[in-house]
Amino acid sequence: MVKRVMAGPLKDFVVRMMTTVDVSAEDAATVADVLVAADLRGIDSHGVARLRRYVEGCKTGLMKPRPNIRIEHEGPCSAALDGDSGLGKVISRKAMGIAIAKAQASGVGVVSVRNSNHYGIAAYYSMMALEHDMIGLSMTNARARVAPTFARTGFYGTNPISVAIPAGEERPYVLDMATSVVPEGKLEVYNRLGKSMPEGWVVLEGDQPCLEPAQGLAMLRGERMGGILPLGGLGESHGGHKGYGLGLMVDILCGVMSGANWGPKINTVTSNNLGHFFAAMRVDLFQPVAEFKAEMDTMLRTLKAMPKADGHDRIFVHGEKEYEAHDRRSVEGIPLNPRVLDDLAKLANEQGVAFDL
Amino acid sequence: MVKRVMAGPLKDFVVRMMTTVDVSAEDAATVADVLVAADLRGIDSHGVARLRRYVEGCKTGLMKPRPNIRIEHEGPCSAALDGDSGLGKVISRKAMGIAIAKAQASGVGVVSVRNSNHYGIAAYYSMMALEHDMIGLSMTNARARVAPTFARTGFYGTNPISVAIPAGEERPYVLDMATSVVPEGKLEVYNRLGKSMPEGWVVLEGDQPCLEPAQGLAMLRGERMGGILPLGGLGESHGGHKGYGLGLMVDILCGVMSGANWGPKINTVTSNNLGHFFAAMRVDLFQPVAEFKAEMDTMLRTLKAMPKADGHDRIFVHGEKEYEAHDRRSVEGIPLNPRVLDDLAKLANEQGVAFDL
Repeated sequence: MVKRVMAGPLKDFVVRMMTTVDVSAEDAATVADVLVAADLRGIDSHGVARLRRYVEGCKTGLMKPRPNIRIEHEGPCSAALDGDSGLGKVISRKAMGIAIAKAQASGVGVVSVRNSNHYGIAAYYSMMALEHDMIGLSMTNARARVAPTFARTGFYGTNPISVAIPAGEERPYVLDMATSVVPEGKLEVYNRLGKSMPEGWVVLEGDQPCLEPAQGLAMLRGERMGGILPLGGLGESHGGHKGYGLGLMVDILCGVMSGANWGPKINTVTSNNLGHFFAAMRVDLFQPVAEFKAEMDTMLRTLKAMPKADGHDRIFVHGEKEYEAHDRRSVEGIPLNPRVLDDLAKLANEQGVAFDL
Repeated sequence: MVKRVMAGPLKDFVVRMMTTVDVSAEDAATVADVLVAADLRGIDSHGVARLRRYVEGCKTGLMKPRPNIRIEHEGPCSAALDGDSGLGKVISRKAMGIAIAKAQASGVGVVSVRNSNHYGIAAYYSMMALEHDMIGLSMTNARARVAPTFARTGFYGTNPISVAIPAGEERPYVLDMATSVVPEGKLEVYNRLGKSMPEGWVVLEGDQPCLEPAQGLAMLRGERMGGILPLGGLGESHGGHKGYGLGLMVDILCGVMSGANWGPKINTVTSNNLGHFFAAMRVDLFQPVAEFKAEMDTMLRTLKAMPKADGHDRIFVHGEKEYEAHDRRSVEGIPLNPRVLDDLAKLANEQGVAFDL
């Protein structure tokens, strides 16, 4: 049975759990805020279902509970951060905060991050820019599982890009996309449901369509050559080389440029050394905020009022579904399925925390 | 018969032609450089085959031969440009130059442009950053012809994104992609060849596959509802909403943010008022240039050495094919087909210029 839990108690639980592994109350609150933001937004794959990963990460030493996050180089609109193998969410919130502060002073802020770990939903950080009337950008690299065009196996990760742009009365535009056709979590969902995957998501040995999620997951575990396809699919006929280009760009900006790992060097078992890239840009560099927001509203309303394809009564702006999920789940609670609840209860027991959800 | 023409005389011809419509020698040289760069790089659809468009644009007054291009707002790392309806290539080269100068001073430069016209290949401007050891970004909006996910017809343009990143001994990474599955020129090519298009490129009335290029071109002329599909294709199953998100982002950054036209407001008949967005960022904000370039080389070599899919012996890095075309065509000349040559001869005759190609 799915149980609905309110965001407040769920965050409190995460904080209690993270503090058992020596994370400070402040940093634990950050982890809780990012995880529960994912659940509120309907991105269940990146929410509290992953709490075990962070608790165990701190226990095994893969993630340092009390890292020395430091700026290695700094300019009027830039900073290069070393995350000291801390929790990705803590490092990234700090990094995006620096990007925003730089943008407040200079108009634009760009921040690279190395020695980080999994940072959760990309949109959490890009959206931090919105309340400052800035455009936010957030990217991360990830474990190699996407196959470049014409390659036999995976080279880089699902490397998401998130861009958040403020609007006026309309909801902001919030793009948050894996640069692969689908994120890894989709294979797990199809596997659980016992459904075949459509052609064009995953290939084995470079070009053999893989429709069985179990086979795809075996490939992701490294048991077979293959990969998730880049956005645009197999080969070049439908633009697969473009998705591959975007994923590679993310790996360059997050990995090569920051001095983090990239491509097949990313190994989640020993040390992640993931890299991220964040940017913030003030809208009023180009025109007054009120005018920009009014024009955004006009554009988004014009877009949503367009004639629809048969069988559809709505055109969605990016982030709109997630804002609606957030509003709904803030009131009704976050639905947690029994598998997730059991795992959280087990984890609480392991850590000697009373389970009260 | 295809005739091969060397880049030098071809540029000279373009300069002579543009000066007949009151464009200054300097600006005519810019137009020639951008057009012939496209031909050299193998992007024939954006080369001298389009010269008529710019000559006639100046004659009809759509494009001002002597615009007053001015900075409307300026900050330490930003500028908002008004192109005064000049030639897009002249405005954009100037704008990217400003972005680079700002980045030299502050680390990052961002420039928005309004009141511009068609700017040609996006990569011309992003690549200007390379020789300064900077990463370059170039985007433009364009006439509405791409259908958002679930919409019945086109809302925004093929809105390209180009990103150029320096390397060491390897060629730079140069992404230059329409955010649609295919650029508009692809329909023209298939029409000329009398070939059917693959499913997933163009739809009529929101979801009916259009395989006949002639029908697709009629749709682009506004005779039928429909659109080119965003990267990722129809609906959401293969990420069409992501391509739609990227195209919309380009329209917001280039159109809404700059104060230019956007979406269906873009009308090539009366006044373009296209918008662009450019950025430059110094690589040495994050690590020494030499180290960055060495690591880029390692990454690109690792990528190209990967096992290949059956039937393929090469993995391409973005821009590699275009660099190779450039090298080949710089030596062998640019192949111009009879249709293009005839039109250039006719145009020369109309302008009273001796045709010597």
